Amino acid sequence: MNNATFSIKHRIELEAEPARVYAAISTQAGIASWWTPMVATESRVGSVATVRFGDGEHGADMRVDALTVGEQVRWHCVDGAWKGLNFTFSIASHDRGSVLHFENSGWPDDGDFYMHCNAKWGFFLTVSLKQLLEKGTGVPHPNDPSI
Amino acid sequence: MNNATFSIKHRIELEAEPARVYAAISTQAGIASWWTPMVATESRVGSVATVRFGDGEHGADMRVDALTVGEQVRWHCVDGAWKGLNFTFSIASHDRGSVLHFENSGWPDDGDFYMHCNAKWGFFLTVSLKQLLEKGTGVPHPNDPSI
Repeated sequence: MNNATFSIKHRIELEAEPARVYAAISTQAGIASWWTPMVATESRVGSVATVRFGDGEHGADMRVDALTVGEQVRWHCVDGAWKGLNFTFSIASHDRGSVLHFENSGWPDDGDFYMHCNAKWGFFLTVSLKQLLEKGTGVPHPNDPSI
Repeated sequence: MNNATFSIKHRIELEAEPARVYAAISTQAGIASWWTPMVATESRVGSVATVRFGDGEHGADMRVDALTVGEQVRWHCVDGAWKGLNFTFSIASHDRGSVLHFENSGWPDDGDFYMHCNAKWGFFLTVSLKQLLEKGTGVPHPNDPSI
């Protein structure tokens, strides 16, 4: 019996203060600017954010489990593509501005869907979120690479 | 005692035939166009490719362990940043052209350097390699995001 699970983990440095990184990850306007414009969130612990892609039928419902200003955002997927998985964004001060550690944990396997999502997170964090914070414009869905 | 190791794993679909994907990953001109121009390889099993970044002092020496035309490229890092780790690029035909499975295995932990490299591979594969194959121009080092 094997109870091991897998995580998607990324670390990126950002030339932006922790408060700005936090706003980009915790607010509807922020998330819409780097992940998907089809998002609705109250930015309140215990509320459920909806994120959608494509025709609006696909996506996930994310319960907001933690919101610590300038430090952490945590979601738990309660329905949809990543049901049961956790998403933790940890922000800290850094010489360059901020360092973001992202962990998407609870994957039962590291097969094709895990590998696809890992590649997508690589794009959304290293390109879209970073460009939003450093240059003012992100590259949210549907302009992310079709992989 | 825990002998588990960690892998960086990405899956991307590419609008290019497997032979072109293979050439981009196995030849000096190909690798230079999406990863780093500071590369030298004989494209021969058993030879050691050198890949460098920045001032040319940093990088890795990669022994070429497998070259199967249109199917697989495998390296083993014999010296440098990823010493002891394996890099496997597996290519297959797909409706869209090709599907690439990338695995960088043997990481003893999934800490900061793993997370940094995972984010970098996300960029090099979803953006640089993909744009090279689909649009003709990649985004190799030093034009990759400074994360």
